[in-house]
Order: sequence, then C-alpha cells, then structure tokens
Amino acid sequence: MNDLLRTAHALADAAAAQSMAHFRQPLDIITKADESPVTLADRAAEQAMRDILAQALPQDGIYGEEHGQQNLDAARVWVLDPIDGTRSFITGSPLWGTLIGALEGGRVVLGLVDMPVLGERWVGQDGVAMRNGQPVRVRDCTQLADARIFTTSPDIFSAADWAAFDRLSRQCAMRRFGGDCYSYAQLAGGTIDLVVEAGLQPYDYLGPAGLVEAAGGVITDWEGQPLGLHSDGRVVAAATPELHRQALAALAG
Amino acid sequence: MNDLLRTAHALADAAAAQSMAHFRQPLDIITKADESPVTLADRAAEQAMRDILAQALPQDGIYGEEHGQQNLDAARVWVLDPIDGTRSFITGSPLWGTLIGALEGGRVVLGLVDMPVLGERWVGQDGVAMRNGQPVRVRDCTQLADARIFTTSPDIFSAADWAAFDRLSRQCAMRRFGGDCYSYAQLAGGTIDLVVEAGLQPYDYLGPAGLVEAAGGVITDWEGQPLGLHSDGRVVAAATPELHRQALAALAG
Repeated sequence: MNDLLRTAHALADAAAAQSMAHFRQPLDIITKADESPVTLADRAAEQAMRDILAQALPQDGIYGEEHGQQNLDAARVWVLDPIDGTRSFITGSPLWGTLIGALEGGRVVLGLVDMPVLGERWVGQDGVAMRNGQPVRVRDCTQLADARIFTTSPDIFSAADWAAFDRLSRQCAMRRFGGDCYSYAQLAGGTIDLVVEAGLQPYDYLGPAGLVEAAGGVITDWEGQPLGLHSDGRVVAAATPELHRQALAALAG
Repeated sequence: MNDLLRTAHALADAAAAQSMAHFRQPLDIITKADESPVTLADRAAEQAMRDILAQALPQDGIYGEEHGQQNLDAARVWVLDPIDGTRSFITGSPLWGTLIGALEGGRVVLGLVDMPVLGERWVGQDGVAMRNGQPVRVRDCTQLADARIFTTSPDIFSAADWAAFDRLSRQCAMRRFGGDCYSYAQLAGGTIDLVVEAGLQPYDYLGPAGLVEAAGGVITDWEGQPLGLHSDGRVVAAATPELHRQALAALAG
C-alpha cells in the first residue's frame, strides 16, 4: 500500500470512529445557511481527519465541508466530506458515508467512499478500484434501454434540471431514488449504470469521482467537462463512454 | 420466546440463507405481468419458508408474493414477501428485506422485517418491538412541521396520489425517497415519523404493520381503515395518533 492510500485509510478510520459514536444517538441538529443539516458528528469527524493531515502532511491543502478551505494552491489538496448523507445519518439510515478525494494538479488521483454502517470501504487509485480489498469494475452497459439509473431525490434538482433528468431516466430500464454517495459505489461495483445529480459541492463528487474513474467509469459535469473544485455541481457518472454520451445527449434534450 | 415468534425467526433464517447466496451474484431477472422484477432468489427464499410451514404448521394459510395463496380461511395466515425491494436487491443496495406477517382472525399478531445485509432483524408482537432483541419504540412526534417523512419513489403513485403525497410531505420537516421496507423499521426505531406509500400488496405492508403497531405507531390505509388482505394498497404509517390524523387530513386535501 502506498503512502497516499495509507493516509486515506487513516483519515477514513478516524472519521468513522467519530461518526459511528453518534449514529442513532440523540443529536443536536444545526441548520446551515443553505438549509442542509449538520451535526456534532459531521464536525468531529472532519476535525479528526484534519488533525491527521496537520500532523502528517502539513503542506497539503484541504477543502472540507464543515471547516472550510485552506492552502488550495498546494500541490495536493484533500477534499473531505465527513458525513455525506447527513439526512440519512440523522434518520437512522445506513446509506451515509465518508468521502475523501486527493487532487494533484487539479486532477483526482485517489477517491475513497467509506460506508461505516455497511462495513464497506471503496477506494480507487491508478485505475484500480477495490471494495474491502477486492477488485471491482463497472458493468459493460452501453445502451440507455438497458441502464439502471440512480439519483438521490427529485428535490435536488431545479425545475429545468428535473425535466432533463426525467427525460433521461424514462429512457432507462430502471430508475431509483435514494442512495446518496452509495450510488457511486454501486456504479463502481457494476450493479448500476448511471448516477445523475445536481446541486452537489466538490466534497460530494470528487471522492466518488476518483472511485468511479478507477473502476473504469466516466464521470463529468452535464456538459461533459471534467469535474474539479469549480464545477457547477451537476454530475453524470456512467459505466461506459457510450452510455455517458447518450446520457449527456438526453439531458441536453 | 413463544412458538409463533420462534417460527417467524425460522422462516426468516431460511429465507436469508437463500437470498444472501444470490446477492450481488449474476442473476436472471424475470419481469412479471405487473412489470415488477423477480429473481430465482425471490422464489427460492419463499419456497424455503413454505417448506417450513408445510412441515410445522400444515393447517395454516399462506399468502406469498411469488408462489400464491392457499387456505386463506385458516385460523392463522402467514403473509410472506421473501425479498421486498427486489429492485434494491438486483442493484446491489442493502435496503431489501424479508417481510413476514402472521394474521389471526384477519388481524396482524406478529410482524417481522429482516434486513440480512444490515444484520438487523426487527420483530413486533403483543405491543413489544425489538431490533436484534433490543426494545425499540416510535418517537413522540405530534406535528407535521417536526416530522420526517419517507416514501420509496415518486413512481409508486398515481398522479392524484402523488399530488396528495406532495401536499402532505411539503408540510413536513424533511422528506426522503428510497428505503423500501426499511422505512417502516426506521419508524419503529424512532428515527423517522411518517411513511406514506401507494400501490402496495398485502405482503408489502402486513409484516411492517405488525412491527409498527408493536412499536407504538399507527398504520392504516389512506382513509384511516385498518390494513388487511383486501386493502387498496395505500398506506399511512405514523409515530403517533396526532401525526396520523394530520397526515390523513393533508392527504385528503
């Protein structure tokens, strides 16, 4: 295991220790300016990861959901979401996770999706994706008519974006809601074929992007541009380039 | 543990052995007349439960999703859904479960929701609900404005029923999609407050109904009538009678 991957595992371990201590326990819920909920668990889990980075890699930059941004001009930037799916977390659902992305020169070089309740850690790096150390890969699905598409909720879309998602998803074999970050793991593991979302932040999509790309999938914004810290929060992840192309066309109308 | 509960556990154990053997494995998917998918795993899991009942309680009736109905005039009828959430199952999501309800004189006297991937078995009987042997209970939420509401998908509703659900859910503190049968477990465990669905079959709601009632919740159809084998498939489950009353009123418009 290389140093980067070892660090990512250490961050995920530290976050899980904090988040699991609060799961299904009475919890104060704070509502942020964008109306998304946050808890003590989110903040403690991100702080635990920042403490490790401050110690081990003080020169690296950090872009975190709860405690902000620092040193984004560094050669490497860690993008951290301590609890993706806070609504799942506070409602006792197991489908929340810790997302970690490592960027070098603005490109994702490592992505980690940790699902502490499920006991599943998904990592992608250098074209290899693993679930708990076992290799995984996307499915060979090349037609919308055969594709299973996931998104978190109709409520994440603007009216126009929902119309586009609706048009695309009705051409697919199956559409499903719910899932948060786990949908990207399902895509990497070859059990679904498309994830299309909007309204996301860099810490929501850069960890998953590293996993999906390492598993052989394609992930961009709705215009087909690579994802970065300044994308517009609309994401299309697909199992194959063919499917990705068809999804972009259907979204464009 | 009484005989009825012991039998329910034996059924769930037998179903899980079959379903877990097929989870995340390559699988033939058959599409039924109502367009819902079914797999060899569904059929094998229900057969395993029927074999136990044929041996242990041959006089009891059975109402199963996959292998039909027999002896529904019996003093006791078992209502079986081997894999609720087949779409979750085939897409590699952990949120599918085995649902078991025991009816005596048309009333649910035991409800079991087993979540094999999560390792959580939820049972309700005689006013006591347990998750893995630990008592659980609904939350004391009495206002829509404080309530967390779940449903599986906008796609389960007719246009009129969706309008009613939308009207109700927009008055709640939080609405979420996805979850299938697990939403009823979350309600029983006190982490959410309302589950509202439509288009369900008796094997989808009678096992969960036994759990929700034993946990102190209220579960009926959209007219407030008790659920039975001949309900219309529209379900309102609430943590408290106050919330249930408000939900019915909001659905009625």
